[in-house]
Amino acid sequence: VTEFPVVGVVGGGQLARMMASPAVALGLRLRLLADSSTDGAAQVIPDTVVGDYRDLDDLRRFAKGCDVLTFDHEHVPTEHLRALESSGVQVRPGPDALMFAQDKGLMRERLGAIGAPVPAWLKVASASDVVRFAAEVGGFPVVLKATRGGYDGKGVWLVGDEHEAAEVLSHDQVPGFVVEELVRYERELCAMVARSPSGQAVAYPVVETVQRDGICHEVYAPAPGLHEDRAMTAQQVALRIAGELGVVGILAVELFDTAGGVLVNELAMRPHNSGHWTIEGAATSQFENHLRAVLDLPLGDPSAVAGTTVMVNLLGGDLDDLYPAYLHCMARDPQLKIHAYGKTVRPGRKIGHVTLVGRTTARSQHDPELVDLIDRGRHAVGYLRGDIDE
Amino acid sequence: VTEFPVVGVVGGGQLARMMASPAVALGLRLRLLADSSTDGAAQVIPDTVVGDYRDLDDLRRFAKGCDVLTFDHEHVPTEHLRALESSGVQVRPGPDALMFAQDKGLMRERLGAIGAPVPAWLKVASASDVVRFAAEVGGFPVVLKATRGGYDGKGVWLVGDEHEAAEVLSHDQVPGFVVEELVRYERELCAMVARSPSGQAVAYPVVETVQRDGICHEVYAPAPGLHEDRAMTAQQVALRIAGELGVVGILAVELFDTAGGVLVNELAMRPHNSGHWTIEGAATSQFENHLRAVLDLPLGDPSAVAGTTVMVNLLGGDLDDLYPAYLHCMARDPQLKIHAYGKTVRPGRKIGHVTLVGRTTARSQHDPELVDLIDRGRHAVGYLRGDIDE
Repeated sequence: VTEFPVVGVVGGGQLARMMASPAVALGLRLRLLADSSTDGAAQVIPDTVVGDYRDLDDLRRFAKGCDVLTFDHEHVPTEHLRALESSGVQVRPGPDALMFAQDKGLMRERLGAIGAPVPAWLKVASASDVVRFAAEVGGFPVVLKATRGGYDGKGVWLVGDEHEAAEVLSHDQVPGFVVEELVRYERELCAMVARSPSGQAVAYPVVETVQRDGICHEVYAPAPGLHEDRAMTAQQVALRIAGELGVVGILAVELFDTAGGVLVNELAMRPHNSGHWTIEGAATSQFENHLRAVLDLPLGDPSAVAGTTVMVNLLGGDLDDLYPAYLHCMARDPQLKIHAYGKTVRPGRKIGHVTLVGRTTARSQHDPELVDLIDRGRHAVGYLRGDIDE
Repeated sequence: VTEFPVVGVVGGGQLARMMASPAVALGLRLRLLADSSTDGAAQVIPDTVVGDYRDLDDLRRFAKGCDVLTFDHEHVPTEHLRALESSGVQVRPGPDALMFAQDKGLMRERLGAIGAPVPAWLKVASASDVVRFAAEVGGFPVVLKATRGGYDGKGVWLVGDEHEAAEVLSHDQVPGFVVEELVRYERELCAMVARSPSGQAVAYPVVETVQRDGICHEVYAPAPGLHEDRAMTAQQVALRIAGELGVVGILAVELFDTAGGVLVNELAMRPHNSGHWTIEGAATSQFENHLRAVLDLPLGDPSAVAGTTVMVNLLGGDLDDLYPAYLHCMARDPQLKIHAYGKTVRPGRKIGHVTLVGRTTARSQHDPELVDLIDRGRHAVGYLRGDIDE
């Protein structure tokens, strides 16, 4: 029998779920550690183990029979990853890289040390620290961030004065805080790279992301009208970070596009919402390249296969049942690609996304084809949410 | 909980396996009836029932809880499909359509009746019938085909005289035979359509298929240099057959491209080898449109997304273990898309395929990009088989 490797994926969400398709194509075998057998990924990966990613025994049990371990999220405790590594488990990305994605303080220190462009920031312990920092960067408002555990806008607070800062810092459930200058940016970008243990790396086209309340809503790929030099700078920053931090797999570098250049906002060391467009829009999807990277297989071509690709997130709305809405959406737009994550609908929860692929490269945000793709994506999502009924 | 329909797929081969990816994307639930839990599709579809598709009880047990039944192959006995239908199971395509794919005699009669262009043919019971037919079509050789059970070149014999015909007709394990004129064709084409129960249909670009010993080896999409009028005729023939026969799902119409026009060779009422290119090369893959069709969802855009797509089949060779060969193939060609079917390697067995997508539309078989895509596809397959080692 042909022996293909087993990739263990910790976490049963949509990122693990979307790894299933390239694994099926390439014949790679996935093994999943999920919180529940009804998780989105558990529904589609036969070899699913139910267990707790915070429990080292569960992790050890799961890792047996896996050739390599990777992740749907960044929440596995670093000490567990180190314990697994020292007992011979291949952990990719490894804890020495992942800790920078897990801890915003460590990440900002390291990015500063390697000379990556970052906003002004400081580790803070008290409201008076925040006040001093604000004075240095031109005053309030500034941004407070919990160093650990934040995602999708959680763990981030815009504070307008000392009192608000004190209020946030009184949340003692998080281990620490950093404060950052409020960056005035024209838009948000994301530079995504894949890197293998042997050091090969590829850079995807830089995309524009549209965030609302800290949650990614839309992605335009490639970023419309982004100057070639700036795109290349963003790719080089991402490649540099991946190399310096020893990332294996996908690294997503969220960037602010400012008058003075790009600044690194956040990092993610796993397939990322800003890369869902690659399923239809790139020669090799982020999910395929993540699997290839963690297996140390040569990476696939990250180029766009279309002129412009638009992705619109589907967040839970009024409709409990997506499927009946497929009829209208598919009839209205035969080019619409719908992705559903197998999740129960809850308001605001990421339950799917839609993708539309266009022929020409948008040179600006006003490009007529881009505007049309965005309209169609938003319409589909509005209908699938139940916001509109025609 | 969002309730998505359950599509029951009878047969655990690569066609069922390749339905898994669009089902994951759309959130559709697949249930598989496989001969064994190690079948290619059973490896990737959690809800797998092991049973015998020739056994009505197994089929009934399987159909419980499925919203619709469809197929990876055409070998389920027609009488079982009728029994399932009369007990209320949705069978798509239904037995009234499938019987034409199962019985070459019935198919040729029906195609004749609806005026589709077919080679001269006759049902035969004796060698003297064959001799009389040969005299009418200009002499031997002629082609004898078993009316049932043939695939991939099995059940087809080129016979040069009465003696050889008698020898073939002495194989009494098949229910009957048809004889056909030996068509002189320039190349083989395939016209693929998807049709839904409500009658919507879409036609894929007509492709060129390269067969050896009755087995599909390569597909070029769209067929290079095929005149627009002839392509349209081929699509119309396929749409007409799908409509007249009441096909639901994918219909592949294999055609001879002759000096006088296209002639129908064979039909398949399921996703088909000639349509694997659509996974990367079309806006909607044949597997997605098959699922959409059997669920009576509006069909997706069948257009090519690339200029030219080349698919090369991977038939089992000397190498037992494909995976180590991935390293070289992926390093050599970052655009190569490898598909492995999770099958044990046996010489000549279809165990996978590779796809390469090009930017420009090939206007002839000598188009330089087409030639390059074919070379790269053949090289990858040669390496994966163990025919070459560099």
